Amino acid sequence: MSHRNASGAKTQEIQETVDLALFGALGDLSQRKLLPALYHLDREGLLADDTRLLGLARQNLELDAFKEQVRTTLTRYTKPVELDDTVLERFLARLDYVRLDFTQTEGYNAIRQWRETRRPSPLVIYLAVGASLYGDICRHLQRSDSLDESCRVVVEKPIGHDLESSADINDAIGDVFPESRIYRIDHYLGKETVQNLIALRFANPLFGTQWNQNHISHVEITVAEKVGIEGRWGYFDQAGQLRDMVQNHLLQLLCLIAMEPPSNLDADAIRDEKVKVLKALKPFTGEALGRDVVRGQYTVGNSGGKNVPGYLEEEGANTESRTETFVAMKTEVANWRWAGVPFYLRTGKRMPEKLSQIVIHFRQQPHYIFDPDQRGLATNKLIIRLQPEEGIALQVLTKDSGLDKGMRLRPGPLHLDFNDAFSKSRIPDAYERLLLEAMKGQQYLFVRRDEVEHAWRWCDHLIAEWEAREEPPRRYPAGSWGPVASIAMITQDGRSWYEDY
Amino acid sequence: MSHRNASGAKTQEIQETVDLALFGALGDLSQRKLLPALYHLDREGLLADDTRLLGLARQNLELDAFKEQVRTTLTRYTKPVELDDTVLERFLARLDYVRLDFTQTEGYNAIRQWRETRRPSPLVIYLAVGASLYGDICRHLQRSDSLDESCRVVVEKPIGHDLESSADINDAIGDVFPESRIYRIDHYLGKETVQNLIALRFANPLFGTQWNQNHISHVEITVAEKVGIEGRWGYFDQAGQLRDMVQNHLLQLLCLIAMEPPSNLDADAIRDEKVKVLKALKPFTGEALGRDVVRGQYTVGNSGGKNVPGYLEEEGANTESRTETFVAMKTEVANWRWAGVPFYLRTGKRMPEKLSQIVIHFRQQPHYIFDPDQRGLATNKLIIRLQPEEGIALQVLTKDSGLDKGMRLRPGPLHLDFNDAFSKSRIPDAYERLLLEAMKGQQYLFVRRDEVEHAWRWCDHLIAEWEAREEPPRRYPAGSWGPVASIAMITQDGRSWYEDY
Repeated sequence: MSHRNASGAKTQEIQETVDLALFGALGDLSQRKLLPALYHLDREGLLADDTRLLGLARQNLELDAFKEQVRTTLTRYTKPVELDDTVLERFLARLDYVRLDFTQTEGYNAIRQWRETRRPSPLVIYLAVGASLYGDICRHLQRSDSLDESCRVVVEKPIGHDLESSADINDAIGDVFPESRIYRIDHYLGKETVQNLIALRFANPLFGTQWNQNHISHVEITVAEKVGIEGRWGYFDQAGQLRDMVQNHLLQLLCLIAMEPPSNLDADAIRDEKVKVLKALKPFTGEALGRDVVRGQYTVGNSGGKNVPGYLEEEGANTESRTETFVAMKTEVANWRWAGVPFYLRTGKRMPEKLSQIVIHFRQQPHYIFDPDQRGLATNKLIIRLQPEEGIALQVLTKDSGLDKGMRLRPGPLHLDFNDAFSKSRIPDAYERLLLEAMKGQQYLFVRRDEVEHAWRWCDHLIAEWEAREEPPRRYPAGSWGPVASIAMITQDGRSWYEDY
Repeated sequence: MSHRNASGAKTQEIQETVDLALFGALGDLSQRKLLPALYHLDREGLLADDTRLLGLARQNLELDAFKEQVRTTLTRYTKPVELDDTVLERFLARLDYVRLDFTQTEGYNAIRQWRETRRPSPLVIYLAVGASLYGDICRHLQRSDSLDESCRVVVEKPIGHDLESSADINDAIGDVFPESRIYRIDHYLGKETVQNLIALRFANPLFGTQWNQNHISHVEITVAEKVGIEGRWGYFDQAGQLRDMVQNHLLQLLCLIAMEPPSNLDADAIRDEKVKVLKALKPFTGEALGRDVVRGQYTVGNSGGKNVPGYLEEEGANTESRTETFVAMKTEVANWRWAGVPFYLRTGKRMPEKLSQIVIHFRQQPHYIFDPDQRGLATNKLIIRLQPEEGIALQVLTKDSGLDKGMRLRPGPLHLDFNDAFSKSRIPDAYERLLLEAMKGQQYLFVRRDEVEHAWRWCDHLIAEWEAREEPPRRYPAGSWGPVASIAMITQDGRSWYEDY
């Protein structure tokens, strides 16, 4: 029943029984992500036989109706994997359901009673509900005497919309749970390729010894969404792309790229290093604000062959909104390892394609001896692709093999595709990994409170500067790579955004 | 008509007319390698329209009969490529033939007369004959007034069997041709992957900056032949594996791996650096001789599923022979870049498979944070495979993608196969490249006299030590990887010969 720490030697052993209480079991996240993820864990033998799942939601449903709902949802969201009937029945048999008004303590007795019918085992409480409810739910759990030292709570972003509001939420959770039992999800951390950053950096001296300003010229992080606002205009307009994407996903990626090697893989060893990166991030002030940050907002355009409205023409839009749907920035980690190495970050909605990738650009060789015509050829790059498919490629220059080429060079990627040759196995969804780690009590893929807060501090500063300036965002047509200024920002450094693969 | 230096920017232009005089046109090398290579060059449009080829041999043949012979030989040796009739006819139309007794000056007038019928163009004289004839042929060419400043001479190994005899041959050639017009072939230098060493090292800072004793722990060079003596026992027994393979091929590979970056790609810039490596090679003396060199001779065994005789039982064998058919050695390049980095060299006949490869082993990371069980996992390696197929692979450790694996590592090769994804084009045979470069007057893939001589000096020393010791070679069964002592030699350093791919 034992398992080890994050380095994970013994995880192939029988899993420990862990129960799961899922708040918001009928909500979108549960249906689209969490229940399919749990089904896959069951299918792979990673749920202990006795592990049970308590669905909690406001709706008045019989257990059988809940099971039918889950059956329907799994059929829909585990595609393209074919449902296995045996696994499906086993999984449905794990389910319980309790109707609960999350705001009323009384109902919570049902949770305590559910636990009392079972052999004592750790409880993972997943709050798949809005952050405004986190504090209430935690309090009611405590008041109803539903908790013990084994209980862990899993929460989702967004945790607040600035440092102050996130501190309030974290305080409310922290009043009930110690930090060591709070699991803040940033689902990017559950992606295989993101975890692979740790392996690539620290298991490969070839990369590890070059991972600094002596050898790396610059780093790009792009998280481009093809979609627009998707019916949540009001919500998004309160946030904007900086809060919605940079404060969490992009900064988390940046931390994993930039952090010093931790002395081991313990959660806090890693998170201590990530916090140091966030603290070392240069704030944008004075000139840098105009030069190194570009805010954008999409206008009418063409996406995937059809005309789409601009941000201000979306359903429910306030036509005066200055909220950014795109942000590009050139930032720097002000420490010994990274001084002088720009980190170019870029994220936006209504881009030409869905594309999340990190590109590590290595410096040019000190002396060039090949054809002068080829001087501009790409240098070595490590490309870590998260979306649409996960994969790693290393750009290497080789001799062009044509006989008529003399010693001509040719850039060729050495590919490491998780989807094909390298591994025939399905790539698990980020939520599978994260649920599994939460059930195992491993926190290294979850975000610690001080990480959230340092990220907010840096973003809040930038937002305050923006608001003081009152500049409108720059326009870019839907279906383009953002405002021209975001291209100019990197071009003036003699570089360009990397868009091939 | 112009073309540039080795970096080759302009070689796509129309080729210059160059004539070719092929001594030994009916011999094995011409038939199996040179004529097929020339056909391929013609097929790829790399022979100028007016370029002609004069076959020279002892046999009394009409031109038509010579053409028929070439037609037959091409049909046989250009496989698996289908002969193109148009190209074949064009190629045959380039041919002339002169019967010549290579030892008599008179006949050489025919060469001068052949040249006089044609527009003046550079002449490449390929001596596909035994080295004992090189001096005679050069002298007769000169005496018959067949030469001018445009003439280049191409010669094949073996050039002598020690420093003294090679100096005699080189003197005889050198009396007629200046070094700048002598092209000594080591066909390994014509292989795509061998030339790729230059691109890999000097166009990729990722490798270039790590190419020294700080980052590389050791280097392996293996040239394993599956075949045995193949009917040339008498010849081979005079030489042995050290002279036959190490003095030329393995030392050339070692030079390209170990040389300092040349300041440009000119032939002499590269060859100056190669010579420096040969001069820095540690000689084997005293203890090192017993510890770091293993000589072997194969005995009866099994190769490719059938029983094969031992070296001393081969047809024509002298049963007392102590000639080695295998040699393994641990050597070192005694300079700032490589001090302390062993170069393990190994070559032999009757090995389990045909395998030529270079493996660059990078050092372990300074601190290890993954599963202690996986500490022994392979580190980063760059694997440059020359035979049986050409290709480059980089061994990288990534996170194992299985959900049950935690942060488990997995060694995965990043492959760069010339045969598939990277390039759909046929890999040219080494002789195509070498003939083309000789016709273009580019010497960087040819061996300079001082390279040959420094390599002999080092080998002669080793042979003299062996002879002084009078130790018989160690036995190994045909179809094995050589004497057990050659395994022990590397094992005692905590390493092993790399045999996967």
